[in-house]
Amino acid sequence: MKNDLQIISARWVIPVVPRNTVLEHHSVVSENGKIIDLLPTKKALHNYPQAEHIECGSHALIPGLINAHTHVAMNLFRGIADDLPLMEWLNEHIWPAEQQWVNLDFVRDGSELAITEMLLSGTTCFNDMYFYPNVVAKTAQEMGIRAFVGMIVIDFPSAWAASVDEYFDKGMLVHDEVRALSRVNTTMAPHAPYTVSDDPLVKVRTYADELHVPITMHIHETEQEISDAVAQDGRRPLERLYELGLLNPRMIAVHMTQLTDEEVKLAAQQGIHVVHCPESNLKLASGQCRVADLLESGANVCLGTDSAASNNDLDMLGEMRTACLIAKNLSKDARTLPAWQALEMATINGAKALNVSNEIGSLEIGKSADIVAINLNHISTQPVYDPIAQIVYSASREQVSDVWVDGKQRVKNKQPLGIDVAHILKKAAEWSERIKTS
Amino acid sequence: MKNDLQIISARWVIPVVPRNTVLEHHSVVSENGKIIDLLPTKKALHNYPQAEHIECGSHALIPGLINAHTHVAMNLFRGIADDLPLMEWLNEHIWPAEQQWVNLDFVRDGSELAITEMLLSGTTCFNDMYFYPNVVAKTAQEMGIRAFVGMIVIDFPSAWAASVDEYFDKGMLVHDEVRALSRVNTTMAPHAPYTVSDDPLVKVRTYADELHVPITMHIHETEQEISDAVAQDGRRPLERLYELGLLNPRMIAVHMTQLTDEEVKLAAQQGIHVVHCPESNLKLASGQCRVADLLESGANVCLGTDSAASNNDLDMLGEMRTACLIAKNLSKDARTLPAWQALEMATINGAKALNVSNEIGSLEIGKSADIVAINLNHISTQPVYDPIAQIVYSASREQVSDVWVDGKQRVKNKQPLGIDVAHILKKAAEWSERIKTS
Repeated sequence: MKNDLQIISARWVIPVVPRNTVLEHHSVVSENGKIIDLLPTKKALHNYPQAEHIECGSHALIPGLINAHTHVAMNLFRGIADDLPLMEWLNEHIWPAEQQWVNLDFVRDGSELAITEMLLSGTTCFNDMYFYPNVVAKTAQEMGIRAFVGMIVIDFPSAWAASVDEYFDKGMLVHDEVRALSRVNTTMAPHAPYTVSDDPLVKVRTYADELHVPITMHIHETEQEISDAVAQDGRRPLERLYELGLLNPRMIAVHMTQLTDEEVKLAAQQGIHVVHCPESNLKLASGQCRVADLLESGANVCLGTDSAASNNDLDMLGEMRTACLIAKNLSKDARTLPAWQALEMATINGAKALNVSNEIGSLEIGKSADIVAINLNHISTQPVYDPIAQIVYSASREQVSDVWVDGKQRVKNKQPLGIDVAHILKKAAEWSERIKTS
Repeated sequence: MKNDLQIISARWVIPVVPRNTVLEHHSVVSENGKIIDLLPTKKALHNYPQAEHIECGSHALIPGLINAHTHVAMNLFRGIADDLPLMEWLNEHIWPAEQQWVNLDFVRDGSELAITEMLLSGTTCFNDMYFYPNVVAKTAQEMGIRAFVGMIVIDFPSAWAASVDEYFDKGMLVHDEVRALSRVNTTMAPHAPYTVSDDPLVKVRTYADELHVPITMHIHETEQEISDAVAQDGRRPLERLYELGLLNPRMIAVHMTQLTDEEVKLAAQQGIHVVHCPESNLKLASGQCRVADLLESGANVCLGTDSAASNNDLDMLGEMRTACLIAKNLSKDARTLPAWQALEMATINGAKALNVSNEIGSLEIGKSADIVAINLNHISTQPVYDPIAQIVYSASREQVSDVWVDGKQRVKNKQPLGIDVAHILKKAAEWSERIKTS
């Protein structure tokens, strides 16, 4: 790799670690994709005179955002069925549409649309769970974003696999393929307690241990999930997963809208990670995750958008805002989940969940140069008293001006580099015409 | 006025009235500021060959958004104190800052910042309550937005007035001044039950009746407001206002986060209008308005941002989204408050509250040409199955491309016309430097 020493200087640098810190007139210096220094801009220019210098004079730099739960290909179903509860939405709209439409081309085109949306809004890493994870992986690698793709497991046949064994076999093939991709990793991704039986779940645990990969799973998404499970085998799903040995630090538990006090404690004790998907949970009226209680108990909570079909966007800035607002409402205390804590959830906490907090999630020396510049010199974000609050409560995705992944620029002045936006939009329109008229 | 016949043709026209309607490839034809026709684009071009033709080929046209409650000058306090509960926020931060900083210049500069933000995000009318309403009025008229300014009344002296009598006297002067302004009207604006005593409230009612203007008032914003009132005179504030004769169709009751079933019924029976300010209520942990129950009971509910100090933006698109999401969560039913209903709240319902639904709030023949074009050909809003859902759940304020008020273009291709954005940003930065270092 060529030497690419660069200084990105900004009005504000928000490294996330250390906590709730704003550095004024600082610079991030990177070389060969890694952050090698973080210091006042004057010093940076003096110490690294040979570096390329990128000035972000009215911007805040933050670590690349980590979308800890999504299904990117579903971007092609954005808005296909709104204002419906989860099970009706799934059974009568999403699953039939998936059965009819999901194939390799669908996943590639949907992924391209979603990855462009994510890069443009400051997301540099996502944790995906969907059919054809090999296609998602390849698309992510090509487009320059970091991805975790799920080796999905579900009791039912799909376009991707005909049996539980085939899910595992194909997952392993994906895992092997992905080794060659510098920015992609895998997770074990059993769909949900109500769609995966005990035997495959035990196998998931074993595989995750052997491969040293996280496990991602939808857990306690709705009241109905719990009541159905209790009716069937007398246990709440978390209890069953605990007994199966799945509640360990590899577990990334998505949604978790239905938690007793004991389950909040259990989550913290077992060191599992929770992905809060506030907008999807609200939109499907699934319930609300007790984020503040989980954080208070010591559990790691990160943030995800879920798919664009239930959100309806992949905008992590909006997700941070919604997370803060509804956490305050739930606790009846406006101090709950301040802006800086939501930013941690969207960055370092996601990195911890994916077991890559030594590589990404904060602007620290030694980490990858996954950096997002947000221009706060905007009518909607002036004046600036506190740039962190401004990013969380006022900034929109269009104020993301520049994005680097591994030190390589992927968005420049709001334009994605090396991505044919017109082509992607055309493909999306073509898919929707076909799907609409079917 | 010169003849200015124009055709605005769009991929989608969403007139709001009739309800939940999307017209494809339609045009709005206007002349001298009024809508004179709404018809398929082919016909429009045939019927009005002499008209100027503006093409919005990938856009949805909606009526100008109506922000039914805000304090625009407070834009200069955006982000000054976040993550704090209402009374601490008011007593320890906002009121002291207002006492120190609010003057005529502050209100003008803050209003310019806010009005630019509103125009750029598709708001064409706002209902304001703040000191120096004459300055807000003049600024709004000059900048081409429609405004209602409150003749504020509060028991305490301020930079604006030293006594209750002076509030009324100055209010009347404002009312007289505003007659000369084509786009500005007034409301009677008693601050809140806990800051205005009975005598001035009765006077407010009398004045409102004589002047034929609405009354805007913060009511039942927090639990504490209710419990303090009950402790003091044994009545909940709504009961007191009812006995004072203020609960009538002139009343625009802002917030209303604390309502019993009886109060929901009372609101509907009395024909008062409710302004839901979801993001401000969540951010200050004030509680949540029972929007769906109010609408179900037949009450008129509209939407406001509140000030940028408690939101922290004046983005009505975001406000619609938040309203939908939290209404579903509150009712535990994803069908609650569908996207089209939030769009009604943000347009025609606001017009009803302000008693101008014969003039604005929908794209209907005879109404003012207050029109907003939202470009949906965007990575984050493709594909489009349902443009109304797309606007509410996916679009961002930056997708507002063009805005007309009274048929006159105020935003063109995302640029405000006749507004010196750089100057406004500079002023905002200067204010924040002074306020920060004080």
